[in-house]
Amino acid sequence: MKTITSRDNPAVKRLHALAHSARDRRSEGRTLLDGAHLVRAALDAGWPLRELVASDQGLGRAEIADLLERCTGVPAIHLTDALFAHVSPVDTPSGLLAVIDLPVPPPTRAFAESLLVLDGVQDAGNLGTILRTAAAAGMRDVLLTPGCAQAWSPRVLRAGMGGHFCLRLYEHADVAVLLQGYPGQILATGLGAGARGLYEMDLRGTVAWLFGAEGRGLSMAVAALATDTVVIPMPGAVESLNVAAAAAVCLFEQVRQRRVA
Amino acid sequence: MKTITSRDNPAVKRLHALAHSARDRRSEGRTLLDGAHLVRAALDAGWPLRELVASDQGLGRAEIADLLERCTGVPAIHLTDALFAHVSPVDTPSGLLAVIDLPVPPPTRAFAESLLVLDGVQDAGNLGTILRTAAAAGMRDVLLTPGCAQAWSPRVLRAGMGGHFCLRLYEHADVAVLLQGYPGQILATGLGAGARGLYEMDLRGTVAWLFGAEGRGLSMAVAALATDTVVIPMPGAVESLNVAAAAAVCLFEQVRQRRVA
Repeated sequence: MKTITSRDNPAVKRLHALAHSARDRRSEGRTLLDGAHLVRAALDAGWPLRELVASDQGLGRAEIADLLERCTGVPAIHLTDALFAHVSPVDTPSGLLAVIDLPVPPPTRAFAESLLVLDGVQDAGNLGTILRTAAAAGMRDVLLTPGCAQAWSPRVLRAGMGGHFCLRLYEHADVAVLLQGYPGQILATGLGAGARGLYEMDLRGTVAWLFGAEGRGLSMAVAALATDTVVIPMPGAVESLNVAAAAAVCLFEQVRQRRVA
Repeated sequence: MKTITSRDNPAVKRLHALAHSARDRRSEGRTLLDGAHLVRAALDAGWPLRELVASDQGLGRAEIADLLERCTGVPAIHLTDALFAHVSPVDTPSGLLAVIDLPVPPPTRAFAESLLVLDGVQDAGNLGTILRTAAAAGMRDVLLTPGCAQAWSPRVLRAGMGGHFCLRLYEHADVAVLLQGYPGQILATGLGAGARGLYEMDLRGTVAWLFGAEGRGLSMAVAALATDTVVIPMPGAVESLNVAAAAAVCLFEQVRQRRVA
C-alpha cells in the first residue's frame, strides 16, 4: 500500500476536492464513501470501488483491515492521521474512505409503484436519513427536485448508511413530468385546508409521498400535484416534526397498513 | 440598542463562549437560542430571556424586528454581520440570538406516565430531533444518561425547534434508580432474541421507551431494564433506521394506537 505524507500530493488534493466540492465531484464523476459501514454496504451491493484510503488509526482497526483484505484488487493508499483528517468529508474521521463513480442516472419511466418525492431538501443529514428510511421501508424510487442537496455527496451518503445502494435516485427531477399519469395517490403532508389525518387514510395501495424543505415546505409547483394533503396528528404542544421524522412516520404507517392487510 | 463592532468586547467573548463551550455554559448557567423560531417558542412558553443579540441582516427582517419589539424590557445588543457570524453557534447564522438561563433540573419523582430514555445519544441533530418528536407526540419526561450530548446546547436547542420548552429534561439521569417501580412497559428497540414486532404490541398504556446511540445501541445497564424488546419491521434491504427516525416511528405508533382506542 502506497503511503502519502504530503498535502501537496496530487492524490490528496483530488480527495480533498471530492470531499468538499459538489462541482469537483460532478466534473470528476466520482464521490467518496466515508467509514467502514458504508464501504461494506457498497461491497455487499456489488458497487465497484475505484480506490481505498486508510489512515494510521484506520489500519489499526480489525474491521477496516478486514475490508482492505476483501478488496485486494482495489488500489489502496495510506495517509497519516493528520492528512486523513484533512481530506475527510466529516468532522470525526472514520479511518477509511472509498472512491466510487457517481452512478449513471437511472432511465426515467412511467412510475407505477409507491415512491418518494423530495422537494428542496437541502440539509445533508435530513436527506441522507430520509433515503435510509425509504430503503428500510422498501421504497425503490426517489425523485429529487433541483433544489435538493447533491444526493451522492459524502455527507448525504454517510447519513444514508447504505440506503443509496438499494434505491434508484432521480436527481434534478422534473416531478410534474415524471408523475404524469401516475396511477396512485399523490400525498403532500401539511396543514392545508381539507387535510386528512394520516391514520384515517388507506395507504395500502400505490402512494407518491411528497416532502418539502423544512420551513419553506413544498414549492407551489410540486404541491399542486398532490391529490390529497395528510396531517400527522400531534397530541403535544409542538406542532411540527423534522422532515426526516415526518417521512419516517408516514412511510412506516404505510408499512404497517400493508402488513395488516 | 447598543452596537458592538469589536471581537475584543467582553460581551462578544462571552457569547462566543456560550455558543462553543459546554463547560462555559455550565459555569455561566446560561445558553443560547439561535433563530427567530426558537426565540418565539421560548417567549410563547413564558421562558425569560436575559439578552437579545441581532445582526445587521437580522435587524432588516420583519420577523426579528417584531420579536425585538415584543421584548422591550430585555437588554438587546447589535452586532455587525461578521461579528454575529463569529459568535453564532451554527453554520448559517439566523440573525437573532437570545441568552437564557439553563433551567433548574426538574425534581426527580416516581414516574407513572409514558416517557423517553435516551442513552448515550451524542449527535446534536439527532438529540434535538428526538426531543422535538417527543414534544409533538405529547411526551413530558425525557431521561438522558450522562453519555448524551448536553441537551441545552445551542445546536440541540436549534434541532429541538422549541420542543425543549414543553418537556421536563432529566440530564445525567441514573435511569436504573429513576425507573425503579415504574408501572408500565419498558421497551428497548432492537433485534435481540425474543424481540416482538412493533405493530403487534399493545402500546395504549404506559410505556418507557429506551433509545441508544447509533452503532453502539443501549448500554448493558440500560438494556437490562427493558421488559421487552421491540423490532420495527423493515421490508426493505436496509435493516436499521437512524435513531431519530426509529423514535418517530415508535412514538407515533403509540399516538396512533391511543387515537384508535
